[in-house]
Amino acid sequence: MASIDINCDMGESFGAWNMGDDALLMQYISSANIACGFHAGDPDVMLETVRRALACNVAIGAHPGLPDLQGFGRREMALAPSQVYALVAYQVGALYGVARAQGGSLHHVKTHGALYGMTARQPEMARAVAQAVYDIDATLPVYVANANMAQAVRERGLPVVYEVYADRSYQDDGTLTPRNLPNAMIEDVDQAIAQVLQMVRTGTVTALSGKRVPIDADTLCIHGDQAGAANFAARIRSALLAEGIEVRTP
Amino acid sequence: MASIDINCDMGESFGAWNMGDDALLMQYISSANIACGFHAGDPDVMLETVRRALACNVAIGAHPGLPDLQGFGRREMALAPSQVYALVAYQVGALYGVARAQGGSLHHVKTHGALYGMTARQPEMARAVAQAVYDIDATLPVYVANANMAQAVRERGLPVVYEVYADRSYQDDGTLTPRNLPNAMIEDVDQAIAQVLQMVRTGTVTALSGKRVPIDADTLCIHGDQAGAANFAARIRSALLAEGIEVRTP
Amino acid sequence: MASIDINCDMGESFGAWNMGDDALLMQYISSANIACGFHAGDPDVMLETVRRALACNVAIGAHPGLPDLQGFGRREMALAPSQVYALVAYQVGALYGVARAQGGSLHHVKTHGALYGMTARQPEMARAVAQAVYDIDATLPVYVANANMAQAVRERGLPVVYEVYADRSYQDDGTLTPRNLPNAMIEDVDQAIAQVLQMVRTGTVTALSGKRVPIDADTLCIHGDQAGAANFAARIRSALLAEGIEVRTP
Amino acid sequence: MASIDINCDMGESFGAWNMGDDALLMQYISSANIACGFHAGDPDVMLETVRRALACNVAIGAHPGLPDLQGFGRREMALAPSQVYALVAYQVGALYGVARAQGGSLHHVKTHGALYGMTARQPEMARAVAQAVYDIDATLPVYVANANMAQAVRERGLPVVYEVYADRSYQDDGTLTPRNLPNAMIEDVDQAIAQVLQMVRTGTVTALSGKRVPIDADTLCIHGDQAGAANFAARIRSALLAEGIEVRTP
Repeated sequence: MASIDINCDMGESFGAWNMGDDALLMQYISSANIACGFHAGDPDVMLETVRRALACNVAIGAHPGLPDLQGFGRREMALAPSQVYALVAYQVGALYGVARAQGGSLHHVKTHGALYGMTARQPEMARAVAQAVYDIDATLPVYVANANMAQAVRERGLPVVYEVYADRSYQDDGTLTPRNLPNAMIEDVDQAIAQVLQMVRTGTVTALSGKRVPIDADTLCIHGDQAGAANFAARIRSALLAEGIEVRTP
Repeated sequence: MASIDINCDMGESFGAWNMGDDALLMQYISSANIACGFHAGDPDVMLETVRRALACNVAIGAHPGLPDLQGFGRREMALAPSQVYALVAYQVGALYGVARAQGGSLHHVKTHGALYGMTARQPEMARAVAQAVYDIDATLPVYVANANMAQAVRERGLPVVYEVYADRSYQDDGTLTPRNLPNAMIEDVDQAIAQVLQMVRTGTVTALSGKRVPIDADTLCIHGDQAGAANFAARIRSALLAEGIEVRTP
Repeated sequence: MASIDINCDMGESFGAWNMGDDALLMQYISSANIACGFHAGDPDVMLETVRRALACNVAIGAHPGLPDLQGFGRREMALAPSQVYALVAYQVGALYGVARAQGGSLHHVKTHGALYGMTARQPEMARAVAQAVYDIDATLPVYVANANMAQAVRERGLPVVYEVYADRSYQDDGTLTPRNLPNAMIEDVDQAIAQVLQMVRTGTVTALSGKRVPIDADTLCIHGDQAGAANFAARIRSALLAEGIEVRTP
Repeated sequence: MASIDINCDMGESFGAWNMGDDALLMQYISSANIACGFHAGDPDVMLETVRRALACNVAIGAHPGLPDLQGFGRREMALAPSQVYALVAYQVGALYGVARAQGGSLHHVKTHGALYGMTARQPEMARAVAQAVYDIDATLPVYVANANMAQAVRERGLPVVYEVYADRSYQDDGTLTPRNLPNAMIEDVDQAIAQVLQMVRTGTVTALSGKRVPIDADTLCIHGDQAGAANFAARIRSALLAEGIEVRTP
């Protein structure tokens, strides 16, 4: 039976500040990337998010980011690979602690924001992340959506989970159309859903050029911070189920 | 063969700021209470401290504290027990992640500073700490030096490790003489060493009143931030070994 | 002509996290208590808030709080008076810098959350705050709503601005009914408005007991973080203007 | 009478962590660049440092840095110019508040670490810093040691104070020899002192090539965090005084 995972960033509130409608979105996804306190989240938010994920039978993933709350981990920082290694080990461990305290366990790791961007452009950063995950648990899958990170994770021998997007168009080489180019975003929901269905059923995506290119679609990333996020999540989930495609972790 | 553990707070540097001569002290102790980034320490410091502990065959303990770097976790904060639970789970997990990444494992937990003080006066805080440790790993010993914490740890069914001090005098009820009272501190090193030897060999301590009272002495706490700390640690270790007392974790 | 100031906490967003509808509320108030980065706010948020206040001709006040972003400055901390002095000087200065950079100036100071609570119960904290404000600018008014703080500000020779609430009931001694007592909150908007009008016109408030007691009503505090805050602000402002009462800073 | 200022970074301790021997160094310098809490320092440290500067008749300068305590402001961050503007205004204001509370005033501004580096390579960052200083106080001198920053400060109409180094060699174009090149550092103290004396007396420096090039030497930067810093400061000060050169702010 065909299947795809739906993942979404969760637990991005901080202290008195709320972000995202986690309670609602948690009902439509199969895996949660939970912020670990460096770019968002705090121990209380993490605890609540873990409980919510367990209650919804959603897989718990660590979503480590740069140590920059004010910048939400979106401002690149000049870190050494050893520092990236350490902050990934710290954050993955922190979520492990909170998850384990609630009877849960870690399912995957996905990097956040500028840390993700650094792994996309700097192979040594991708390797530092992969090594940290490997050293903590060599069986922990890493969600990847860029070539550098995919290569580092494969070379390190960790399970790779390939991520696709419903609302982004693709290029002939199977990469995302950069956001600054025309038609990078797919605004039409039906078109977005159709793209996902094609990915799961055929293992291909139709690039902007019209060319069909092969694509690995293990997990679909939903953006929780956009208006209509829960609505979109509900629709894509329904469409998948209606087509006999199971929504579950890889 | 008689034995006692020697524990010391470690990894209390932060970023560019150094604190304590960890490299030297690590040679004389058998267990390290490693700061977890809330009151001191950061992922890089934790990584280095874990490596150092592993190299010296020193047991790795989590030393969670209040989220107050500027105050070094020494300023009490009005937290809810659920917040204490969450921050202990987070910090123990964070050190677990860093330790595990280096091939190490967690040996114990000991609370720091004002968090320790809160567990001493507020039973619900002691219970929150004990519950968090228990929920992460029900076999993880907790180092305790106050009645509230000892009770909470025992009731929760976790292993209790009773902590004693070389440089503090005791009262008839087996508790420490409060620091604001005369003769609370034992300044003379020979006298401090004699007190420890008596504790280990006889399971008693001679209170300020002259009365001999029973005491559980599983681990001896060395203060790493005092002048002459390493010298004192070396001397107490030598004295213990000379008396045929092994220095090792309980 | 009778008048009263309407003040509201502003600039309580932080980084990517939004709080309060400042743009809307700013239209109804005459003075803004702007968070200074310790419990909420950051340099970018402060800059935007200052610009918004200047555009709306709203007076700029510093709203210093405890150094606890996660707790929103609502968790009391065991600080020394000298530390309170320093953090008030720092935060008032920080807002001065941002305001001055935009061509504005500081109009007043009001303490936030647990720092306010500490000034209410510990006279030495109230004195530390008053001294810090005095040492920066001896003409800067302090908004006060508790006896300790009022006394410290008066004794220090700073201008005192007495704060009243529309949605809180009062006791025979002119103090607020504690929140844990019945009828502490005035839920009915018309009743809340009537209370304010009485305060401004007669200098009295009708206590819960039915007794009329004198009250100083220089500024009315609006809570911006409650549902319907802007609506309430609009109504109270209209009601004041309709009665010929000017809304302006003291 | 010939003169030169001696400046040094001060107030770089943080909470329980000490850095630098400020008490000693303060005796040899004429202006202090005081950390403002973002990369180092905190309100208590700033207060103590301001008091020490006032006691030693040393000019108080703001030393704003990036918001990265763990990285000591030395890790470049991808900030927008508007964010740099805001954080400079905030930090300069914060030190203003603390200084003013102690009866002092601001004498100058000098950027720290990676923020300095960003102004050296990105003209828009240099302009953002200059604009923030100008908007707070158009008479406040800025200490500069790179061309971008010097140009931005001049264009903005602020007083420029040109900074030189005793322990760094120079190139034919009057810039510092990059640290990764041979002979970038002048290890010999006598040679370092001779270089400074030549700079003050002749307005020239002898480049590595042997060529004499003109140089503006308004202030000499001493590095307080190096071993022997106080000793070097004492020697350079003595040497200047012995040659009839006054040590004072420009």
